Amino acid sequence: MSKIFVDACFGKETPYTPVWMMRQAGRYLPEYMEVRAKAGNFLNLCHDPKKACEVTLQPVDIVGVDAAILFSDILVIPDEMGMELSFVKGEGPKFSDPIRNEADLERLIGGEEAASKLTYVYDTIKLIKEQLAEDKALIGFTGAPWTLATYMIEGEGTKTYNICKKMMYSNPELLHKILAKVTEVVKLYMEKQIQSGIDVVQIFDSWAAAIEPSKYDEFSWKYMVEIAEYLKEKYPHIPVIMFPKGIPAFLDKVYGNFDVFGVDWSTPMAYAKEKLGDRYVLQGNMEPCRLYSKESTTECVEALQKIMGGKRHIFNLGHGILPDVPVENAKHFINECHRVSGK
Amino acid sequence: MSKIFVDACFGKETPYTPVWMMRQAGRYLPEYMEVRAKAGNFLNLCHDPKKACEVTLQPVDIVGVDAAILFSDILVIPDEMGMELSFVKGEGPKFSDPIRNEADLERLIGGEEAASKLTYVYDTIKLIKEQLAEDKALIGFTGAPWTLATYMIEGEGTKTYNICKKMMYSNPELLHKILAKVTEVVKLYMEKQIQSGIDVVQIFDSWAAAIEPSKYDEFSWKYMVEIAEYLKEKYPHIPVIMFPKGIPAFLDKVYGNFDVFGVDWSTPMAYAKEKLGDRYVLQGNMEPCRLYSKESTTECVEALQKIMGGKRHIFNLGHGILPDVPVENAKHFINECHRVSGK
Repeated sequence: MSKIFVDACFGKETPYTPVWMMRQAGRYLPEYMEVRAKAGNFLNLCHDPKKACEVTLQPVDIVGVDAAILFSDILVIPDEMGMELSFVKGEGPKFSDPIRNEADLERLIGGEEAASKLTYVYDTIKLIKEQLAEDKALIGFTGAPWTLATYMIEGEGTKTYNICKKMMYSNPELLHKILAKVTEVVKLYMEKQIQSGIDVVQIFDSWAAAIEPSKYDEFSWKYMVEIAEYLKEKYPHIPVIMFPKGIPAFLDKVYGNFDVFGVDWSTPMAYAKEKLGDRYVLQGNMEPCRLYSKESTTECVEALQKIMGGKRHIFNLGHGILPDVPVENAKHFINECHRVSGK
Repeated sequence: MSKIFVDACFGKETPYTPVWMMRQAGRYLPEYMEVRAKAGNFLNLCHDPKKACEVTLQPVDIVGVDAAILFSDILVIPDEMGMELSFVKGEGPKFSDPIRNEADLERLIGGEEAASKLTYVYDTIKLIKEQLAEDKALIGFTGAPWTLATYMIEGEGTKTYNICKKMMYSNPELLHKILAKVTEVVKLYMEKQIQSGIDVVQIFDSWAAAIEPSKYDEFSWKYMVEIAEYLKEKYPHIPVIMFPKGIPAFLDKVYGNFDVFGVDWSTPMAYAKEKLGDRYVLQGNMEPCRLYSKESTTECVEALQKIMGGKRHIFNLGHGILPDVPVENAKHFINECHRVSGK
């Protein structure tokens, strides 16, 4: 059975424009909060294939999205590379022993050995595929090497990225070695996700905007492209979505063999279409805060439909859905995307 | 005596390109840390004209910038509008009683009454002008109404701006009333700064990037333009610099009567020149983290000089200098800007 979401990723004509939402398996859903409470904490939930499968499927049933996205966290990769990941309440993720020099890098587990340790992710995927409706797609994902490296180097989330940036401008060789080691793991990790059954790959560069535009290719994009091209060569039937958040100034320079470009909300869709629309399918890009108002949601969905004309487009938010959005407003968004595109 | 910085703001030919750094009177300077320690805390320092004057002048003497910028904080405005500002260590600014409805707004002190309470700022300016070398300019500043409103509505700094955004999309009328009330105070505040002796105005919209591009004019830019045009009409000899941070996608739509557009580091200077260079002098825009490396600093300064050709340009960082930058690297930046532009 053909999946409308996969067809849309390849730019094929579809009966309507599919839609999903970044962070759709998340805290705005009471059903998610229930499972998470049972799991004890966020990391337990990532490690528990049965529960992770359950929350992955929730938004498909509850809000009616056209694709599920694997429930996991981007930081399971550095965790399995030997960095001890913890989540401190109210402060976010922490690594107690960040990577600051060659010796730190040496002690990280790399390649196949690290990728093989992520069995709970592969098991989650297999469970999901048993239960997901055949016409819906399952999106697997990874963080981009740069985004992962920011946490590995800073040891936590950061506003200024000053430790990474000091390395970027004073010791770029070391930063490249870190990025290369992470890239190797990510390639194999995504390959194993594909072998476990995902239908689509998305690479999230959540902290793309931390790099000045003239350095973005060197420190992030080229590694994302390396991963995409490794996968496309071996698995051409699996679409790859690239989502570098917040770098409108880089759109002139985008290149590489992948299928869908995820447009964040700081980049006007008309601009993205002009720059990239003939080469890539575009995904996005409603400002997630518009979900606070049904009128604002409809206004934006109609504007996006007008710009894209239902062609080479996947509806989505331009960033993750926030926890305090009413579920009925999320449903309204999905329904409106379907309505304007003719479902 | 003509001030090179003021001439440059008006696009006149100058013997070399002037330079200053956002947050130049700041924590990277041991001399600043000393005065701040004596003041007890940050807010005391803002309220003490003698000490505020001292730290304003430090970077002129120590690193050799061509303009001083008044030492103060953007949040003194809401503080004097009747919101109680406090700085919680490690957490930043807080207002215990944020503005969430019409009644909250009603109780705010507005217009002349609020602007008249900021005497410590005007006294600081007068002191600085007595001591600043005649060939150096003094920049006065304010936060943009939108940036001020984010703190007034959220009650503190925010990552998601979800309370403001809920208001933006669900109750835009209330948000506009808040912005209009703040705008009135800002106009009079900047007018009093001019009457106290500042040579140049800069309006900082630090949180510009929180607004989607299609809404930026409505909720921020038009209020900034209203302030600029009020000042330009009465004080045409005072240049106005607009600095909306992180909105490259809005550059196509920039309008208004002001003199200098401050380019942040996420916007390539060549792009800003193409879009705005014939209408506005451009200020900026080195990535502040390049200051960690002298080589990276020189590389960027030379690239900026090549793009701008020493015409209609003011050197600056593309955001504030970080506290852990070595002072000698800051000096190197200033020296390099002067060297490449022929001082």
